[in-house]
Amino acid sequence: MSTELYRLTATAALKAFDDDSLTVEDYAKSLLKHIEDRDPVIKAWAYLNPSQVLEQARALDTVPKEQRGPLHGVAVAVKDMAGMPTQHNSPIYANDQPEVDAGSVIMLRKAGALILGKTRTTEFAATVEGPGTANPHDITRTPGGSSSGSGAAVADFQAPIGLGTQTGGSTIRPGSFNGIYAMKPTWNAISREGQKIYSLILDTLGLYARSVEDLELLGAVFGLKDDEAPRSPKDGVKGLRFAFCKSMVWDQAGPGTQGAMQKGMELLRAHGAEVEEMGLPSEFDELPDWHTCVLKCDGRPSFRPEYQIAKDKLAISLVEHVEEKHGYTRKDYLKAFDSISALRPKWDAIADKYAAVVIPSVPDEAPKGLDSTGSAVFNSWTTALHFPVVNVPGFQGESGMPVGLTLAAPRYKDQALLAVAKEVGKIWEKEGGWASKL
Amino acid sequence: MSTELYRLTATAALKAFDDDSLTVEDYAKSLLKHIEDRDPVIKAWAYLNPSQVLEQARALDTVPKEQRGPLHGVAVAVKDMAGMPTQHNSPIYANDQPEVDAGSVIMLRKAGALILGKTRTTEFAATVEGPGTANPHDITRTPGGSSSGSGAAVADFQAPIGLGTQTGGSTIRPGSFNGIYAMKPTWNAISREGQKIYSLILDTLGLYARSVEDLELLGAVFGLKDDEAPRSPKDGVKGLRFAFCKSMVWDQAGPGTQGAMQKGMELLRAHGAEVEEMGLPSEFDELPDWHTCVLKCDGRPSFRPEYQIAKDKLAISLVEHVEEKHGYTRKDYLKAFDSISALRPKWDAIADKYAAVVIPSVPDEAPKGLDSTGSAVFNSWTTALHFPVVNVPGFQGESGMPVGLTLAAPRYKDQALLAVAKEVGKIWEKEGGWASKL
Repeated sequence: MSTELYRLTATAALKAFDDDSLTVEDYAKSLLKHIEDRDPVIKAWAYLNPSQVLEQARALDTVPKEQRGPLHGVAVAVKDMAGMPTQHNSPIYANDQPEVDAGSVIMLRKAGALILGKTRTTEFAATVEGPGTANPHDITRTPGGSSSGSGAAVADFQAPIGLGTQTGGSTIRPGSFNGIYAMKPTWNAISREGQKIYSLILDTLGLYARSVEDLELLGAVFGLKDDEAPRSPKDGVKGLRFAFCKSMVWDQAGPGTQGAMQKGMELLRAHGAEVEEMGLPSEFDELPDWHTCVLKCDGRPSFRPEYQIAKDKLAISLVEHVEEKHGYTRKDYLKAFDSISALRPKWDAIADKYAAVVIPSVPDEAPKGLDSTGSAVFNSWTTALHFPVVNVPGFQGESGMPVGLTLAAPRYKDQALLAVAKEVGKIWEKEGGWASKL
Repeated sequence: MSTELYRLTATAALKAFDDDSLTVEDYAKSLLKHIEDRDPVIKAWAYLNPSQVLEQARALDTVPKEQRGPLHGVAVAVKDMAGMPTQHNSPIYANDQPEVDAGSVIMLRKAGALILGKTRTTEFAATVEGPGTANPHDITRTPGGSSSGSGAAVADFQAPIGLGTQTGGSTIRPGSFNGIYAMKPTWNAISREGQKIYSLILDTLGLYARSVEDLELLGAVFGLKDDEAPRSPKDGVKGLRFAFCKSMVWDQAGPGTQGAMQKGMELLRAHGAEVEEMGLPSEFDELPDWHTCVLKCDGRPSFRPEYQIAKDKLAISLVEHVEEKHGYTRKDYLKAFDSISALRPKWDAIADKYAAVVIPSVPDEAPKGLDSTGSAVFNSWTTALHFPVVNVPGFQGESGMPVGLTLAAPRYKDQALLAVAKEVGKIWEKEGGWASKL
């Protein structure tokens, strides 16, 4: 085996465990050593206990093959879940240690995963102020947020797969900024039990990996399942129909994203796909505003408990939600909530005509500085409409930092979307112009 | 003071604490003694530690008046929340003790409430099999469910106020069966943080009390607030406009509910209200079926973690959700989900013409036996549409058991609804024909 065991994808690690060429303990040691080297700089982890990880690894090595789970021994970076000290990056919960695992972590453990620890996030995964985590491709830049640590850890080979959450753009943005695959599945397709609530109608579990195969593996553990089993494209993207949709916020796209959309289109065409440009009906124009309204208004009940016990320890933006500084009325909220609801089936009907709709993931490559985690403007409307999205890496911005594009599908076409993303990823990763130097 | 301090409403207890005629400790002792007498029969409590309660009470007595919260010393019965051992009435979580309070409990504690303990519920508040709790008005009958213990405790004077939850009819049904006020506020108006998830789009915190004033008190602590401050009716119900809506499931109403609807209408008319009978548009007819579809399909992600770790310890009905024995496809689910969403603003427009819409709370009085907690058929569509409802007691069935009626309003007209319920309750409680003998 290579001495760089930590670089294995989940799928590759599983194969090595299965053919007895690798023990979970050796794999864990390689990861822990790499994390030890890198964490002082990247700061991806909020909590990681090496001896606990090694203990888990040794226990997994004693499990007979026929009793192993589908993620046996695979290391996972978990965002802000229970089962380990969870502080939501908030001083209010500094001494909190929930003893019950989040639903997703229960499923990971049952599947035999090696839970490495808890990754850093912005306060309550609800603000844009960075938690100090650096982008592994350029440590002077943000890895995005709120799933900052999970995105950075997976990109930096500190874990092959990771969990995030998305309420605005908290999974897809770090996916693009870190040059990895990121998936926000259909809303409520996977249990969100155990995650702090920001918005019930928006919060969604997010998945990170460095390959689509690994996302599929994780999706299967979580029960991600379409009505019809997806057909894997037989001949790459040849003959598949794609729509490129600049979306209602295209005026905020910088050169990195503009270039990625252009190149992404050319590459798919060159490989035989049918590609068209698509605009959305004008009734979609207000979606970003409606998302903002729902998000801020949902922040009122969600953060009222914390506000009541320790307003002075809560981020200003969250205090403002509770105090309704935004000025939205309940009537405004219902207008936004109901208008979004009415567009969901309309999106499904539009997207159903294509193998995938391609939209920007981010305004541009990761901005300089660690203070702000960037803008979610290209993601928020996709979160509101509940449909599944996958960030596919492959392009780069003017500074050579990664830029991804988002593949989107109708709701509950998650498996079909992953099958298409696999083919698109092969092309964009190889010919898009960006490759990880890590 | 009376020796029956435990009979005080929350509002009356607050007044007694404020004029120094009562200490929280004496109040707590009276409640604990009453609970000790009654619990062997009623079995409302899953967890109650008398010395912990007394310790809380003594601590509250040391709080200077100017630092007291709005619920200072008021005893509360809490359903299935954290902060005390919480087992969801499931063997899977028998040893679970979350250390973080649910959002609602955080707010109660901050308001100075005396948390008595955790009340019994059906398994995960998600089944109809009773938890052994008896109806205090007739111990051979069910108190309803899933908020069985909270409903019974409040009716039996074991606590003046209580918390429940409602996904189908889990708050309103026990309200009617136990002859007390019960409120399901607008969906997401109050934090549901810390409650086990059954359905994100349906689960709602529920409130119990023996008076509307107490519901208003509790609502204020939780931040329940309309766009416009409600005007209290100046002259009872005189001149107010009510619609009586038998709803699409009227064929399931028994004599108790039929009589209540008739008498409720006559009484409001006799007191000067404008009353009309109202049918809903036919597009509302499928709501109960759509609710069933959404509920069962949402049970799949929600109970998948428990299913994976201990399928054999999970109720059959929940196992069937995860295994999709119901036969609904994702397409069926989206049709139901989107159709419900489209009807929410339509309901609001209809209900906005009235002071309140009156609908049945239950098929009839509480059925015999403790094994089943009864039917939620009159509640489930109201839960799906997110609008606030209040059960108002006052009527009785053929066996002399209580029967209530539901007052309903548009979404986020919670305070206005309570103001109307207060006037209606005065009439129905006095002249409806049923009075508690407890």
